[in-house]
Amino acid sequence: LEDVNKLETQRRILKYGIPDRGQEYYIYDNHVLAYDQAKKIPIWVAEHLNAQNVKGSANRKHSKFKPDPSVNGRFNAENDDYFKSGWSRGHMSPAGNHKFNQEAMNASFFLSNVVPQNFENNSGFWNRFEIYCRNLTKKFTDVRVITGPVFLPDLEEDGPAIVKYPVIGKGQVAVPTHLYKVVLAELDGKPIALGAFVVPNKPIGFDKKLTDFIVPLETLEEKTGVEFLPKLNLSNVKPLCQVDSCHLKTKDEFELHIITRQLNRAENLDQLYKAYSKLEKKNLKPDQYMIELFTKKEMELKEKQLLGEREKKEL
Amino acid sequence: LEDVNKLETQRRILKYGIPDRGQEYYIYDNHVLAYDQAKKIPIWVAEHLNAQNVKGSANRKHSKFKPDPSVNGRFNAENDDYFKSGWSRGHMSPAGNHKFNQEAMNASFFLSNVVPQNFENNSGFWNRFEIYCRNLTKKFTDVRVITGPVFLPDLEEDGPAIVKYPVIGKGQVAVPTHLYKVVLAELDGKPIALGAFVVPNKPIGFDKKLTDFIVPLETLEEKTGVEFLPKLNLSNVKPLCQVDSCHLKTKDEFELHIITRQLNRAENLDQLYKAYSKLEKKNLKPDQYMIELFTKKEMELKEKQLLGEREKKEL
Ligand SMILES: [Mg+2]
Ligand SMILES: [Mg+2]
Repeated sequence: LEDVNKLETQRRILKYGIPDRGQEYYIYDNHVLAYDQAKKIPIWVAEHLNAQNVKGSANRKHSKFKPDPSVNGRFNAENDDYFKSGWSRGHMSPAGNHKFNQEAMNASFFLSNVVPQNFENNSGFWNRFEIYCRNLTKKFTDVRVITGPVFLPDLEEDGPAIVKYPVIGKGQVAVPTHLYKVVLAELDGKPIALGAFVVPNKPIGFDKKLTDFIVPLETLEEKTGVEFLPKLNLSNVKPLCQVDSCHLKTKDEFELHIITRQLNRAENLDQLYKAYSKLEKKNLKPDQYMIELFTKKEMELKEKQLLGEREKKEL
Repeated sequence: LEDVNKLETQRRILKYGIPDRGQEYYIYDNHVLAYDQAKKIPIWVAEHLNAQNVKGSANRKHSKFKPDPSVNGRFNAENDDYFKSGWSRGHMSPAGNHKFNQEAMNASFFLSNVVPQNFENNSGFWNRFEIYCRNLTKKFTDVRVITGPVFLPDLEEDGPAIVKYPVIGKGQVAVPTHLYKVVLAELDGKPIALGAFVVPNKPIGFDKKLTDFIVPLETLEEKTGVEFLPKLNLSNVKPLCQVDSCHLKTKDEFELHIITRQLNRAENLDQLYKAYSKLEKKNLKPDQYMIELFTKKEMELKEKQLLGEREKKEL
């Protein structure tokens, strides 16, 4: 049809407006996303990581999960939908990718950036995957990540392929069967390596490697209906896990990481000692960084305690 | 965020383009639709019916189901996906709504306008529903219909609500649990009555009424994520089934309708007599229109036969 005819047809048929599925995408301080108003979860969430923006003092304790004010209210997920559902609120763009800016981190807590995620997956394998992506900024100048949910059929049975997923809460928020990430690593503006991964939305143990979840980009695109990087020329881009190890933290490395975070977040000596004592319990050896962190925090918290006691006396 | 900042953020994060889900909507001669590249079926299909465009000589025997050339190939459904799947190719904008124009009817056979539909539903209840919509053009100057698939959870069990649907063929085309229609009737440019209906994608017998499937427009909008008529002021619009009967053809009326269609389509006397004999078999009385149609067609086909015999002799 010619454009003039098309416009006439559109005016005739869509007299009361184009059926509205919300904005094509939403832009925040440090992420961009497309939102599914029927499923009440994002379709894709895009980020750009570099060594600068994954560091900083923004803290998730200042952030709160809440409905996204940009989304038309009745299509929004609510905290109540997640409450006691058996599913965690899983960031697609993780809070830890917005450390440079509290505003940016706060926006990552909008429920437009969240899907119902298995608790163990969220705090375990997926967390390690996110840490891996952040650590790529040590090797690469720019890391681009697109993350989202995907709904795949169960092909195990002999019968027809069936897609099956729960919906939670009054709002019937869809629980994805799988989560995906597309990771592109660049050096000085040049795309170097790309990986696409699809991970089941369930507990994934330390026996699994990230490479177990590699999928061809084209397959992921067909399953999500999204062409993720339409302007990327893939001809000189290598598979990420060939250029890099795609090594996730081992159990010990991950526990050290968690304890380090707890040391960092400790607000009093009790919390500090409790976190540090886990090393012995778990038979883990602290590295030099950790010992120094502990010593520094211990001094800080002792001073804080002294100050507190002095203030009490003066009252 | 301010617009300038947003643009900068977008350029930074989406360096390789906006993740692409295809066009927001596609315009054809006589329908407009939005397409789901993941499910490979439409999201909504909008039409405008009036007394003129539901009549004419366009014939579905000249039309063929095929992938939509407007849709990016790898996101297209294929006839092979439907073949032997156990599901029919169900038009959302029905062929019968494009009788005034063969081109328009042909475009309704693009698989972008099709979902896997239960055979009996397609040829039975849903067909009667479509006839009902067309017949509204006898009472109303303009009828606007938006049709599409919807995926609803199973709420029967005591456990959590689960959405469950098959996907068919190599392309894994999604089979909707339900189909919807939004029907708006206008008189001389003024919206008068609106109905929203959700029908399970399974056989529906003559014991069910159309009014059994009425849903509030808002509920349908929440389940599909679509605001269907964003510019419509609903304040003076009445429920369709209060303004009109919402009566679908009864079993006898429907069989008479089918036989009438077969009489119309008969290409020789054998086919004509075979169709007409069904009346007796089913104990149905032809109305005046049908008797006249039969007499007229019989004369035409006898002449055609004579002409054919004469031509054979002359050869
Ligand atoms: Mg998380
Ligand atoms: Mg049909």
